[in-house]
Amino acid sequence: NADGAGDEDERGLFFKDFTTTSVLREDTKAKLMTLKGKFNGKDGDAVVLLEKLPFDKETVANLMSSSTMHQTLNNDIYSTYEAFPPTNFPDYKTTMIYPATEKHVIKYSEQDMYVVRETKDLYENVTKQCLEKNQFSIQWVYNILEKKCESERIVFEDPDPVNGFILLPDLKWNRKDLDSLYLVAITHNHIKSLRDLNKESLPLLKNILKSGTEAIEKEFNIPVSKLRIYVHYQPSYYHLHVHFSNLKFDAPGTDVLRAHLLDSIIENIEMDSQYYENKTLHYTVKENDVLHQAYKDHGYFK
Amino acid sequence: NADGAGDEDERGLFFKDFTTTSVLREDTKAKLMTLKGKFNGKDGDAVVLLEKLPFDKETVANLMSSSTMHQTLNNDIYSTYEAFPPTNFPDYKTTMIYPATEKHVIKYSEQDMYVVRETKDLYENVTKQCLEKNQFSIQWVYNILEKKCESERIVFEDPDPVNGFILLPDLKWNRKDLDSLYLVAITHNHIKSLRDLNKESLPLLKNILKSGTEAIEKEFNIPVSKLRIYVHYQPSYYHLHVHFSNLKFDAPGTDVLRAHLLDSIIENIEMDSQYYENKTLHYTVKENDVLHQAYKDHGYFK
Repeated sequence: NADGAGDEDERGLFFKDFTTTSVLREDTKAKLMTLKGKFNGKDGDAVVLLEKLPFDKETVANLMSSSTMHQTLNNDIYSTYEAFPPTNFPDYKTTMIYPATEKHVIKYSEQDMYVVRETKDLYENVTKQCLEKNQFSIQWVYNILEKKCESERIVFEDPDPVNGFILLPDLKWNRKDLDSLYLVAITHNHIKSLRDLNKESLPLLKNILKSGTEAIEKEFNIPVSKLRIYVHYQPSYYHLHVHFSNLKFDAPGTDVLRAHLLDSIIENIEMDSQYYENKTLHYTVKENDVLHQAYKDHGYFK
Repeated sequence: NADGAGDEDERGLFFKDFTTTSVLREDTKAKLMTLKGKFNGKDGDAVVLLEKLPFDKETVANLMSSSTMHQTLNNDIYSTYEAFPPTNFPDYKTTMIYPATEKHVIKYSEQDMYVVRETKDLYENVTKQCLEKNQFSIQWVYNILEKKCESERIVFEDPDPVNGFILLPDLKWNRKDLDSLYLVAITHNHIKSLRDLNKESLPLLKNILKSGTEAIEKEFNIPVSKLRIYVHYQPSYYHLHVHFSNLKFDAPGTDVLRAHLLDSIIENIEMDSQYYENKTLHYTVKENDVLHQAYKDHGYFK
């Protein structure tokens, strides 16, 4: 049902009573769109993310042969068609946040971006204070770590409270198409971000690198030479997690202005335990991010 | 009809008799796939490009309300669904090349990629030797530096032979659309790559960062806070050059497995002059690259 209280495996026209109030963002290259809307007769905004599913090797032949094609061009050896598939093919995935706060709306809206060149001092005086004042709830992370939710999705766990972690598929991955394989290792240890990593974190980081890649090779038969393994800074939530994505997958957040290779993090800390405490870190902020506002108030942007 | 000879506006199950012989390439982010196949009882290969259509603002509300949703997750305020739309929405576009030659097949095929974890030793024993044996001509770089070609495209030059450089638009940029602004600074000094940078390179690197961004701000009114400034490793040619691209532009080669921020390079060398001589560097190679072959011959890939 529409308010998200239904059982999994339920099917229906859950968005029949949904009214779109605005398009927040669209990406025509990635075929995704984010919307804000309401359910008729219910309070609160919903933020809805729509994303077309990639073609699936297993079913593409069946999809093509059963799609009604509308020919739109025919020139020499080239022809083009618009395709209308039958109803038994899943076509797009939908993620709903309901009820959504203004922060969620901003997060999924299109905005101007700026590079922040965060020195150690700026981290201490601007970033850290801003994040302490504006904490998003990460209840959903604790739900996973405490096995209250998504426990059936866990691919691997090392339960050690200091050096252990839970490895599970990222929400962006359907767990079927190996070319877009995307998993996340969430640490049991409560570490906020890259800035807090030092030589005490090395056993944890090395454990994630070794056990995480072994679990992925065992479970999905994807070797380490086909994986991109990295941490985001800034992260989307301040509880340490490591991303594992298939090289073939042009995953969001692999840009040099956001991703830091786990292997390089380990090497840099081995060279200097305070590397990430002292390093100037570069990342982008969006116009409506609280961090952008904090840096603006600080006079960082002229 | 299946051989592409039909009229425009014709509709039908044109691919009913199509058999896929191989998937040439897929891009799960852009939701596209290229296939090779045959029509039953007909000669000749067809190359078929499939690409999901982006969501359409005009029809998205109707699409959502009429799609059957299968709930796949429900955690706190988040829920996810697989959506099965009715048959009256065009879902993907198809481009067919028929009959297709072997060149068409290669053009639309994917090569496998692998991560190389290049330690200092592997650089000395494999990469360096491979690059020395397989030198591509970079005459075109010298033509630019000696003003034999493209001199009318130069945006800025510092002629100093040690610390100077030429700044000009990258070939991928049309010099008009500022959102996809992309320039390259090519050094007068003959330095091969990131591996060869050390404290002697600092005046050059700092000069490129300062004078390059000043020239871009003056000429195009794009401030440094809107630019991504980086070096590739591996580069596409072995003469040092620095990329300046607009943040808004999802430029190729900004992945953490290829791009190194100029600002971080300077900081790392200031910390340790031999940082890039000693660092383990990660990058991807494609199956047909000479470097992939060299690493394979060395027994690097099991």
